Amino acid sequence: MNILVINSGSSSIKYQLVQMPDEKIICSGMVERIGLDNAQIHYKTDTHKTENVTEVPNHKVGLEKVAALLMDAKVGVIKDESEIHAVGHRVVHGGSTFSETVIINQSVKDKIKELFALAPLHNPPNYEGIEVSEAIFPSATQIAVFDTAFHQTIPIEAYKYAIPNEFLTEKKIRLYGFHGTSHKYVSEKAKETLPNNSSKLITIHLGNGCSITAVKDGKSVDHSLGFGPMNGLIMGTRSGDIDQSVIFYLVNSLGYSLDEVNTLLQKKSGMQGLTGFSDLRDIEAEAAKGNENCQLALLMFAYRVKKYIGSYASVLNGLDAIVFTAGVGENSILIRKMICENMNYLGIELDKEKNNVKAREITDVSSMHSKVKILVIPTNEEIEIARQSYKLMG
Amino acid sequence: MNILVINSGSSSIKYQLVQMPDEKIICSGMVERIGLDNAQIHYKTDTHKTENVTEVPNHKVGLEKVAALLMDAKVGVIKDESEIHAVGHRVVHGGSTFSETVIINQSVKDKIKELFALAPLHNPPNYEGIEVSEAIFPSATQIAVFDTAFHQTIPIEAYKYAIPNEFLTEKKIRLYGFHGTSHKYVSEKAKETLPNNSSKLITIHLGNGCSITAVKDGKSVDHSLGFGPMNGLIMGTRSGDIDQSVIFYLVNSLGYSLDEVNTLLQKKSGMQGLTGFSDLRDIEAEAAKGNENCQLALLMFAYRVKKYIGSYASVLNGLDAIVFTAGVGENSILIRKMICENMNYLGIELDKEKNNVKAREITDVSSMHSKVKILVIPTNEEIEIARQSYKLMG
Repeated sequence: MNILVINSGSSSIKYQLVQMPDEKIICSGMVERIGLDNAQIHYKTDTHKTENVTEVPNHKVGLEKVAALLMDAKVGVIKDESEIHAVGHRVVHGGSTFSETVIINQSVKDKIKELFALAPLHNPPNYEGIEVSEAIFPSATQIAVFDTAFHQTIPIEAYKYAIPNEFLTEKKIRLYGFHGTSHKYVSEKAKETLPNNSSKLITIHLGNGCSITAVKDGKSVDHSLGFGPMNGLIMGTRSGDIDQSVIFYLVNSLGYSLDEVNTLLQKKSGMQGLTGFSDLRDIEAEAAKGNENCQLALLMFAYRVKKYIGSYASVLNGLDAIVFTAGVGENSILIRKMICENMNYLGIELDKEKNNVKAREITDVSSMHSKVKILVIPTNEEIEIARQSYKLMG
Repeated sequence: MNILVINSGSSSIKYQLVQMPDEKIICSGMVERIGLDNAQIHYKTDTHKTENVTEVPNHKVGLEKVAALLMDAKVGVIKDESEIHAVGHRVVHGGSTFSETVIINQSVKDKIKELFALAPLHNPPNYEGIEVSEAIFPSATQIAVFDTAFHQTIPIEAYKYAIPNEFLTEKKIRLYGFHGTSHKYVSEKAKETLPNNSSKLITIHLGNGCSITAVKDGKSVDHSLGFGPMNGLIMGTRSGDIDQSVIFYLVNSLGYSLDEVNTLLQKKSGMQGLTGFSDLRDIEAEAAKGNENCQLALLMFAYRVKKYIGSYASVLNGLDAIVFTAGVGENSILIRKMICENMNYLGIELDKEKNNVKAREITDVSSMHSKVKILVIPTNEEIEIARQSYKLMG
């Protein structure tokens, strides 16, 4: 069975064609700069790789051009569109409506539309991707996989904010959480190496966006991103946790507009705001050269993660394993070391030699005596979307 | 030595006359409704207690009337104002300027004034109390004890927010922390019963305002209140931690004004917003009768505290003792029980019988086998102010 995985953003479409159940990636690529000058189409198979600059005025044209490549006589991988059995769409926000992957019908589309207000930057282009895909692959089953779905098992004492009840019941303001597909993938992958009785996990997704999840018996029970994607850990350009008083002070006493504060906290804060760099590799290199802002930013980044690990150990009443994933989690030897330092009260002990790795597969970096297993697991949201779609196809 | 302790608020002055070094409270009381109709003066000694409704147009008149009572031929406790050797003033915000208690001079007063912007509700009436006291007790040494001072030992990775550096260096936006006098008092008091090597404490101040401090070797190293008094634990009417995205959503998508949101989060949230009651005794009573909102609010309240205990155990890399204090911490058997439940991974084990107490003195409520000591210690900010003033007087 061939499943096309689509992640449709505001000006891009990422895609992978995955052969199930063996999870073989037949081809992958991306359409970039949709609606802009110099749009590009990347296309890669086992034997072929192209990057074409071309006109891509909208998502429909973009996906049509991808379909043409897939069925191309020379570089294609399928004969016609009937060989695409399902299309698995990443949808960022499923609200409280979607707690699992679903086959898309009109009612599902209507509900995704209702959630535009909660994810104005993401759900509209995700929806656009669905409509375009329905037109181009009419015989394929269209499937929606939600970033929020994995977190729908979080209990109410963790997802409710301490504001009047009608803000939850009527205005739907609560913790939803994000990166769920990644946290689910690595928490399930972790089972492959952990003893059977390992029920208490913390999964730590450190990329440009960062989040951390408490996982009990395979289910998300608490998570650091909340109503939007700003809270919790320090990220590339987002502040993570900050006292809300600061927002009122910036507007009421220092004369900032609320929009300026929003932009500040979303796009000019985090590692970027602290160092001038948003890529952790640059920050590590600068820190090594003696840049004190970079040294402090790394310390703050690790400190915040440590606090969340402690907090979630409380939520779980113990801890069997922590899992590092995503760009920084998989590749930063230094950050993993800083996070695991002075955590022996929990039984977290890193093996320095084993940790000396940019992980390309599941890797145990804990010392022999560590009570808590420390794993590094490359995340793969596309494979997770393909898996869930395949499962739903029966 | 007689030390008058003054806590001057916007429309009230609380006072205690303390004889040092024996810490005997010679008299205590309060002036209420200053500048309003039906102002009241409460005055209490060992042998006498009065409550007078009278005209109190301003703080000066209020403190003059207190002074007159103190020196009254019939109900007074001193002969003249020279018997007041020092006046210890509670000052809420000491910014980054004041890391300890100081004798007030013009330069100190100027600096307290500069901090009005950071604590617009508290520092101005605190300052007013100082000026009035200088006029009425000119021979006494005036001393300022800051709520923020205890937290000035918090390291930069904990007090800095992940926003551009100039917001710290130029705009002084950082975690300051509050309730410092209470956290200091109980963390020092705890030493009386703890083994000498107990260096890792968490002090939990649960009153109408709530906060929690990680204390290492007697010093505050992290704290839940931040730049203002809204963050962290769920409080009587304040939300505590909430994803900042909610603020932008309420204003930009739901049409609230920023002032409405500020009022919502400060005065209509927390236990009040969740239940309609702000007093925990009412909430416990309603929960016992089956009120589900109250049951959930208690669960949320305890859950938030548990997460902070876990987080600070990480900060401290272990835990020797936790200390409950203030109205709820000293008196709520249920809340202490809920917080300590399912925390055995840390070695926290409550003794149900010992916990069955409204503590009036330092009380150990941990089970025989608990690795972490669980103490209940009545706080006494006035005695702490008197102590620090006495110490400074040499």
